Amino acid sequence: MAASPSVLILHPRLTLFATSLRPFSLIHHQFSLRPPTPSRLPILFARSRNHSSSISPLPTATPLSTDDSKETPHAGRSGSVSSPPFQAADYSQKIDVNPPKGTRDFPPEEMRLRNWLFQNFREVSQLFGFEEVDYPVLESEALYIRKAGEEIRDQLYCFEDRGNRRVALRPELTPSLARLVMQKGKSVPLPIKWFAVGQCWRYERMTRGRRREHYQWNMDIIGVPDVTGEAELISSIVTFFKRIGITARDVGFKISSRKVLQEVLSFYSVPETSFSKACIIIDKMGKIPLEEIKKELNSVELSTEAVDELLQVLSMKSLTELEEKLGAAGEAVSELKQLFSLAEKFGYSEWIQFDASVVRGLAYYTGIVFEGFDREGKLRAICGGGRYDRLLSTFGGDDIPACGFGFGDAVIIELLKERKLLPELPLEVENIVCSLDPDLQGAASSVATVLRGKGQVFKRAARINARRLILVGSSEWQRGMVSVKILSTGEQYEVNFDELG
Amino acid sequence: MAASPSVLILHPRLTLFATSLRPFSLIHHQFSLRPPTPSRLPILFARSRNHSSSISPLPTATPLSTDDSKETPHAGRSGSVSSPPFQAADYSQKIDVNPPKGTRDFPPEEMRLRNWLFQNFREVSQLFGFEEVDYPVLESEALYIRKAGEEIRDQLYCFEDRGNRRVALRPELTPSLARLVMQKGKSVPLPIKWFAVGQCWRYERMTRGRRREHYQWNMDIIGVPDVTGEAELISSIVTFFKRIGITARDVGFKISSRKVLQEVLSFYSVPETSFSKACIIIDKMGKIPLEEIKKELNSVELSTEAVDELLQVLSMKSLTELEEKLGAAGEAVSELKQLFSLAEKFGYSEWIQFDASVVRGLAYYTGIVFEGFDREGKLRAICGGGRYDRLLSTFGGDDIPACGFGFGDAVIIELLKERKLLPELPLEVENIVCSLDPDLQGAASSVATVLRGKGQVFKRAARINARRLILVGSSEWQRGMVSVKILSTGEQYEVNFDELG
Repeated sequence: MAASPSVLILHPRLTLFATSLRPFSLIHHQFSLRPPTPSRLPILFARSRNHSSSISPLPTATPLSTDDSKETPHAGRSGSVSSPPFQAADYSQKIDVNPPKGTRDFPPEEMRLRNWLFQNFREVSQLFGFEEVDYPVLESEALYIRKAGEEIRDQLYCFEDRGNRRVALRPELTPSLARLVMQKGKSVPLPIKWFAVGQCWRYERMTRGRRREHYQWNMDIIGVPDVTGEAELISSIVTFFKRIGITARDVGFKISSRKVLQEVLSFYSVPETSFSKACIIIDKMGKIPLEEIKKELNSVELSTEAVDELLQVLSMKSLTELEEKLGAAGEAVSELKQLFSLAEKFGYSEWIQFDASVVRGLAYYTGIVFEGFDREGKLRAICGGGRYDRLLSTFGGDDIPACGFGFGDAVIIELLKERKLLPELPLEVENIVCSLDPDLQGAASSVATVLRGKGQVFKRAARINARRLILVGSSEWQRGMVSVKILSTGEQYEVNFDELG
Repeated sequence: MAASPSVLILHPRLTLFATSLRPFSLIHHQFSLRPPTPSRLPILFARSRNHSSSISPLPTATPLSTDDSKETPHAGRSGSVSSPPFQAADYSQKIDVNPPKGTRDFPPEEMRLRNWLFQNFREVSQLFGFEEVDYPVLESEALYIRKAGEEIRDQLYCFEDRGNRRVALRPELTPSLARLVMQKGKSVPLPIKWFAVGQCWRYERMTRGRRREHYQWNMDIIGVPDVTGEAELISSIVTFFKRIGITARDVGFKISSRKVLQEVLSFYSVPETSFSKACIIIDKMGKIPLEEIKKELNSVELSTEAVDELLQVLSMKSLTELEEKLGAAGEAVSELKQLFSLAEKFGYSEWIQFDASVVRGLAYYTGIVFEGFDREGKLRAICGGGRYDRLLSTFGGDDIPACGFGFGDAVIIELLKERKLLPELPLEVENIVCSLDPDLQGAASSVATVLRGKGQVFKRAARINARRLILVGSSEWQRGMVSVKILSTGEQYEVNFDELG
């Protein structure tokens, strides 16, 4: 692996109580992911009062005495920061140090995991020729007010801004996509293949460990009317799973079509306006009692007979059985058959299965719907998507055939934890530069600048743990030398500053 | 450059009016950044009615007839999407297709620019050994309510959530950083070196083309009391500028210290509580009339004599002059001198200049302050930062010495445009796979899967324009062959499917 340009300067700290060099392993340890002791250990490199700061061979790691951990954590600065004549602060009560309920901070170790996940989202999307887009996290509330009574509507994070506009933190990305497609109009040639990774907000009652925000990966194809679109979307997700170590034994896709429901409801002459409402109700199956489902379906003008027939069809797990019921002529069966045939050509047949009970909880789906699930059945849906050919007309635009999916960052991380597939993501530092004497801070700066300059010929920083410690001591510096310690082996040598690379 | 794994499938479109193959340059053109004509041109590849879809040598680009652009934009799908029995839509008035006032969409070309900018932020931060972090975009309002009367307080995007909590979209990142540092407490060893790239919101009156959201790059060092911290931060920004082609002729840094003001106000026995208020007032110099400034300073208990002296000191552009005025013993002068000396060692002296008028507009700065400016004087400050050793105690915590900067995504883009330094960022597609016959969609899927599979041996997709078009035609496919067209040269040849790579 090429040398990384990453350079960290350790700033010397002057304290009254530290008089000797700490073992080097301590410095290294400072930058490890999880310090083995909970105490904060300031860097206590200091100039000894009675001898020069030349570097002697270094001891190996010694356990820290308990005295050290009793030192006040910020004692290191006490000598250097004088009390100023003015205090800007209004000394207040201690604030709540936690992020708002249902939200997260991303300290470094969490951020590395997020970046790793997002990088995989991005690379897979690009592999499939999709272009990245984004939209404002704050959108007009009107974009999310649909009449089908989805959960999403009751969970909007909405408010009135200072200009009296009703706005909302986006609960999903698809309405923004639709808005942007309408805005671009004829200036963008079809098909559009876009992806996005964005934060979404839902004000949920904080049950079941759910959060109020999550990041969602979306891929959407606008302008492709046939199931090649859905087939390619599922292929992308399968590629993503394989890439992060998830197999068809861990995860599967349940696939159905809303046209199955359409054909049943059509047979029973159920009015058009009941369709998306019925889908939302059916999506609650397994979450609320069946009697409740039936009652709700009755209330949107489905007869008891239609409900019974519907529930019977929804229990089907075989395409052949469905074909026997609905006939081969309808779109529901022919599109599903085409999708299963394409899956074979794409090479992911073992990942997918027909399951008529899948309808998904968003009002706007019109055709194929799918969801990724964990085969052990412990987790919520991992991702979900489908065809939404008529979303644009709900916004007053001309419809364009479209399909897409949403893939959250929460359940996949739970799954990776369960399967012990979380990646090890160490901190990325190549060199640590450390001056042992405050008078050598300038020298240490020059050393760091030279190393960074040489590093910049590489396009990307290689991602590895700190490899070397470069020590700038006065007696060496006078001879134009610096000390280099290879942290993995403990090997230590001097090198001419001009030859450092 | 290594072959890229990026593969795009073109979906065949059946239309009644298209009977012949379009020139290939049209397909390529579809994926260029800005189409030269405003009309949307659907892909009109189609099976000709009377002959097989074998591929004949392709004509070069011909201008599109105006008849084409008169075709309805979505005509391509009309044959394939049947009208379903149910319509989920409530046909509504057309929504506002623009993002909320003051916010932005990021269509692909804007997103490529944003990603390029953020990638440079990240790579420079990592080069300097900083770790990435993030915080919720929605924070408790209390985090931003300071008593110094900064602009930021009047511009909060705040509201009450459904649980009656006062929350705000973050206007800046530093208070969240402080909160997280307090939360982590002793579990994180000092010094902390963190960076973040996050969206921030301010409800501004939409004058001067300002937006209500921007992305901000922050780098912060927590636990380093001396100016090596500030020196390293400025070095990072200089490295960033150089990387994107900005030189010391384009941009400079004005540097001062709030301790200059402290020492003057202390001499005139101005009360402590006036300090940060005075800084906020002084930051308005040049934006509101001088008489107004003087009046406001009087109102925070500065005598007319103190104000006159202050304004005289603030006009200084020379450290020597400042030293003559304040003496060499004070922290203001000694820290500034040390910073200029370190700048020489870091190698960026030509980028910086002392300018006592710089105070920055945030209440919490306590020492060195700096701002990056465009030397032609056309633009607002490009970035700004400084030392804030006492922020944590305003939140009820124990202070830790700290410094950092914020660098927005707006002014730098304006500057790059002015200097004609905006990068060319073409779409990243290596192969386009296109089937000429709907019956060959499965074959095209297999071709794409094979190409993507081979591509995955490369860690990252190489970033180039579409290079090849792979055509799956029926007569070739029967012989196990596909056609490959190199888009840059027009060269076309057949290749055995098994040998495609």
